[in-house]
Amino acid sequence: MQKFGVDDLRGVIAVTPTPALPGAAALTARDTVDLGESDRMIRALVADGVDGIITNGTLGEMATLTLAEWQDFSACVADAVSDTAPDLPLFVGATAPNTRDTVDRIRFLRDLGVRGVILGRPMWSELGADTLLAFYRGVAGLFPDMAIVLYDNPEAFKGPIPSAAYAALSEVPQIIGAKYIAITPKFGADMAAVGSRLRLLPLESDWLAAHTLHPETALGCWSSSALCGPEPVLALRDAIRAGDVGTARHLTRRIEWTYEPFLARTNFPEFSKYNITLEKLRFDEAGYVAAGPARPPYHLVPGPYAEGARENGRRWRRLVGEVRDRNS
Amino acid sequence: MQKFGVDDLRGVIAVTPTPALPGAAALTARDTVDLGESDRMIRALVADGVDGIITNGTLGEMATLTLAEWQDFSACVADAVSDTAPDLPLFVGATAPNTRDTVDRIRFLRDLGVRGVILGRPMWSELGADTLLAFYRGVAGLFPDMAIVLYDNPEAFKGPIPSAAYAALSEVPQIIGAKYIAITPKFGADMAAVGSRLRLLPLESDWLAAHTLHPETALGCWSSSALCGPEPVLALRDAIRAGDVGTARHLTRRIEWTYEPFLARTNFPEFSKYNITLEKLRFDEAGYVAAGPARPPYHLVPGPYAEGARENGRRWRRLVGEVRDRNS
Amino acid sequence: MQKFGVDDLRGVIAVTPTPALPGAAALTARDTVDLGESDRMIRALVADGVDGIITNGTLGEMATLTLAEWQDFSACVADAVSDTAPDLPLFVGATAPNTRDTVDRIRFLRDLGVRGVILGRPMWSELGADTLLAFYRGVAGLFPDMAIVLYDNPEAFKGPIPSAAYAALSEVPQIIGAKYIAITPKFGADMAAVGSRLRLLPLESDWLAAHTLHPETALGCWSSSALCGPEPVLALRDAIRAGDVGTARHLTRRIEWTYEPFLARTNFPEFSKYNITLEKLRFDEAGYVAAGPARPPYHLVPGPYAEGARENGRRWRRLVGEVRDRNS
Amino acid sequence: MQKFGVDDLRGVIAVTPTPALPGAAALTARDTVDLGESDRMIRALVADGVDGIITNGTLGEMATLTLAEWQDFSACVADAVSDTAPDLPLFVGATAPNTRDTVDRIRFLRDLGVRGVILGRPMWSELGADTLLAFYRGVAGLFPDMAIVLYDNPEAFKGPIPSAAYAALSEVPQIIGAKYIAITPKFGADMAAVGSRLRLLPLESDWLAAHTLHPETALGCWSSSALCGPEPVLALRDAIRAGDVGTARHLTRRIEWTYEPFLARTNFPEFSKYNITLEKLRFDEAGYVAAGPARPPYHLVPGPYAEGARENGRRWRRLVGEVRDRNS
Repeated sequence: MQKFGVDDLRGVIAVTPTPALPGAAALTARDTVDLGESDRMIRALVADGVDGIITNGTLGEMATLTLAEWQDFSACVADAVSDTAPDLPLFVGATAPNTRDTVDRIRFLRDLGVRGVILGRPMWSELGADTLLAFYRGVAGLFPDMAIVLYDNPEAFKGPIPSAAYAALSEVPQIIGAKYIAITPKFGADMAAVGSRLRLLPLESDWLAAHTLHPETALGCWSSSALCGPEPVLALRDAIRAGDVGTARHLTRRIEWTYEPFLARTNFPEFSKYNITLEKLRFDEAGYVAAGPARPPYHLVPGPYAEGARENGRRWRRLVGEVRDRNS
Repeated sequence: MQKFGVDDLRGVIAVTPTPALPGAAALTARDTVDLGESDRMIRALVADGVDGIITNGTLGEMATLTLAEWQDFSACVADAVSDTAPDLPLFVGATAPNTRDTVDRIRFLRDLGVRGVILGRPMWSELGADTLLAFYRGVAGLFPDMAIVLYDNPEAFKGPIPSAAYAALSEVPQIIGAKYIAITPKFGADMAAVGSRLRLLPLESDWLAAHTLHPETALGCWSSSALCGPEPVLALRDAIRAGDVGTARHLTRRIEWTYEPFLARTNFPEFSKYNITLEKLRFDEAGYVAAGPARPPYHLVPGPYAEGARENGRRWRRLVGEVRDRNS
Repeated sequence: MQKFGVDDLRGVIAVTPTPALPGAAALTARDTVDLGESDRMIRALVADGVDGIITNGTLGEMATLTLAEWQDFSACVADAVSDTAPDLPLFVGATAPNTRDTVDRIRFLRDLGVRGVILGRPMWSELGADTLLAFYRGVAGLFPDMAIVLYDNPEAFKGPIPSAAYAALSEVPQIIGAKYIAITPKFGADMAAVGSRLRLLPLESDWLAAHTLHPETALGCWSSSALCGPEPVLALRDAIRAGDVGTARHLTRRIEWTYEPFLARTNFPEFSKYNITLEKLRFDEAGYVAAGPARPPYHLVPGPYAEGARENGRRWRRLVGEVRDRNS
Repeated sequence: MQKFGVDDLRGVIAVTPTPALPGAAALTARDTVDLGESDRMIRALVADGVDGIITNGTLGEMATLTLAEWQDFSACVADAVSDTAPDLPLFVGATAPNTRDTVDRIRFLRDLGVRGVILGRPMWSELGADTLLAFYRGVAGLFPDMAIVLYDNPEAFKGPIPSAAYAALSEVPQIIGAKYIAITPKFGADMAAVGSRLRLLPLESDWLAAHTLHPETALGCWSSSALCGPEPVLALRDAIRAGDVGTARHLTRRIEWTYEPFLARTNFPEFSKYNITLEKLRFDEAGYVAAGPARPPYHLVPGPYAEGARENGRRWRRLVGEVRDRNS
């Protein structure tokens, strides 16, 4: 029995880092996950009211955790959710360099009681169109009760998921959604391709635009900024749901303002080289989660990029204050 | 005295083809412009109420007209506008392989009484960031009374206009707008960069989303589909202006429906190779303008792409009918 | 004590697949390495006189072996070499999604007595220039006695190794060579950057050209075609060493003839999507090693590409016959 | 009657700039060609013994000359050749944004008595594979007596000429050669595709390698460095023809040494943005031709790139001295 369907994927899906202990950037460090902070982070998100959680994407350091660390973190997250909100849609990352390693990862998650995964493509070689379909269909076929969210990151996985592939994958019952990179000219075609069978989740700052065009299906967003403090995104959700376009617009533009100094906004390909450290830096600066150091090799970042990320975190913290003031 | 400023650039800016006589695809054909149809096309657009006209971009065959043909067509367009709506913002294409040819083209237009140009970059070699600024600033400096709309087509001109360049160019009084390729992750940053000094014109199907986020500045759109018949885009404009989001959404989605079979939607880089013929085919099929054959070398197109373009034209014609029914 | 230095890297370095048992393409298959064939393959290469062996690059399925399979295969290869040619330069692949996993892999190899690795970059996110240097320097710093061959594959690792990085890495004593993708305009600059401190290994069909320009330093090549039967490449080596340009040219052109139907020749980016299966297909067709099926997700390939690979294998087998006839 | 065939295309084909008068970088400058220097340049090349001349490629400012300037320069070049070496293969550039303009340019050349053109593709939109063939075949069909050299510059013309297109175009009698960008993995496939019907001309520094592999067909090279002084390239030609590999290698490596500081060597895409100015700067520094300023918009260049170009020119001048010393 599949626990999560497309209708469970709505609202604010928070995208988390994997908190690291001091010293985690050393090549000889092992067992670097800060499990206490990880547990606290999940419980805080649940308590604050996010509608779902995604872990272990790019910024969640899927590529740089050892297997043991990923297992420990996954167990910690699964426990925290199970304890506090057992029906919350949780999608743990299971992307690996090949299908069989992904299968082993999903088996491990299933044994933990996790019923959702977020899954990018093997990325050593780019997948051809047929290989992409066979990959996702093959994994889904082995796990009839596991809900899959596609992780569509064209920089990481060497190309976008084509519209035709979206159409085909939306027919697989276990594939219920996609973490969609951004609104691009292809967004409308992809929305048409998946209909109401698969939830395309835009970034929170694209959500209002997507919802304006597709009010029946653009019912959720992903947000890593939510890990700088979820209130602004939750307020955006409430405004969109209430049809309060003025507030939703105001919040979207304030969110855009926080992004102004962030490299992701002006040069995404360059950002992709330093993504992990930049996200962790802004989380640490905002103060909602102690993300700690990034793991090698992605632990270095040019100074001006780092400062832009910290300023993004400071702005987000200020925005949290604005939202609290408004709500009180 | 500059005739057109940023505030004159609003509403529906129609992007026209250059109608061709039979036989125009022959290598030995000269004087191929169908001047009668060109005149009729401009007068029809004016009569139907578009808010501005752009000619001689990619689909307007800036690259494939001979100098004499471009001069004849420009004079014809200038006359038709001058006759019917002398204050209508008209932007004639003046893109050329180099700055001096562009300068000569703009001089010719100025002598015709034209007060607006749309201007892409020289494209033999990609322009570096400083070269791009120097190019636009240099041209603007020579023509203090000519309004310039940037033509931002990353496929044609080997890269997008960077956000920092938008910021700098928005400080040049003559540069009043940009034909913006599509809503991308950079759109918010570009809107912030130009403020209210320069109008970024999205495609008509992106307008509602852009306007939702930026109601004070996203006040216009470009549309080549308007040459399949402008009513649907004009109705969209009226709905957006009236704050009637439901109608605006409905029209946007019907416009998206017309695009479904069109190559531009699913594969823009591939579309860019066959752009001109595909646009002219859909215009001919829709019947609003007799665009005629494309000029060499861009007169060939694979059959399935052509059929998709014709189906786009048929759908648009049907949409025109729907809009008329609704209005009556 | 470092066992292998730049001077040990010369002649024909064979690049091997990881032979697979029947059924290895299934998602549920585990322990898929054909260890008997792996052992036989290594002994055959040694007996036939190759000058070095590289395993577990792209076609050696570094990305698609489970950890246990990679360990089993590595131990098998190490044993076979140790048994037959303990001083043969052997470079086992240790590329992983992150630095710490690579460190663990190299530790495992060191415990096996292996003293050489071939090492590509983590590839989830592209490495910036400084990150690339820090990655290779960091790994080298932990293993003073391990010789490292850079694996420079711009498709897999999202960009070439820049000339400046080659210059810097050539100063690290453990970094003794690079599996260089092909002769490109950058080759001369890279040769100048590394001098005699680091051996750039071109593909066998580029070796004569490289040697003509750089007779003191272009002293070796890599060859996966050697796994279709090494004689042609060994004969090429002997001709180059003997200064017999006529024979070397003849052999190079016959090798080029075998490649004519192979996708790698005409469309390398497309080839990169199907690399593994295509290589294994041509090995199986040539008959020197029973490479067996490719492992998922890279086990699918369009039919015409597959037929081109098989024809390449047949041609190579015929070339082996020609070389034998010539030698007898 | 076609004057030049594939057998006339051999030896050193010099690629020239279009000398400019002081002030040529101004947007208002017209008639900027230094006709005196142009005449002197052609006569010097003829007197010094080059085997052919190509004008008006990228660095020959095909994109930035006005039509009148191009006509004046072409007439000047045609006269100088006709006066001094009427049978010298001369290929004047006729690349334009579209086919009909190219046809008009070639007509003009034919009326001057010029019997060869070098022809790149229209570049506003990338040409699809069929469009590319139709373009070259169409032009050739109109000018049965005009020899055509393909100008294969993937940066300028948005992609390489595919191997299959080379095969097809080599069947057109008028198409006798190609200015080939550089030795790439595709070079062998392209040589096989064209056989002895079409001369692929590599850059001079690639010629020895190409000739080593293809002594029957790699009989010529192109060289813009020849405009820094042709002696080194002519000496290379003589060494290659004499089978003196040692001298040919020495010269090739000295030529590579001159290129070390030149941006083209380490970053070709970036070089392509500043190509023209960088070439003219090194010519001026070497002193063989007074190339003068580059024309807008390509007249700006970052300082470090400029210095690298000047150093390249100084090194070349020193190499000319070395060759003269050796010859005396």
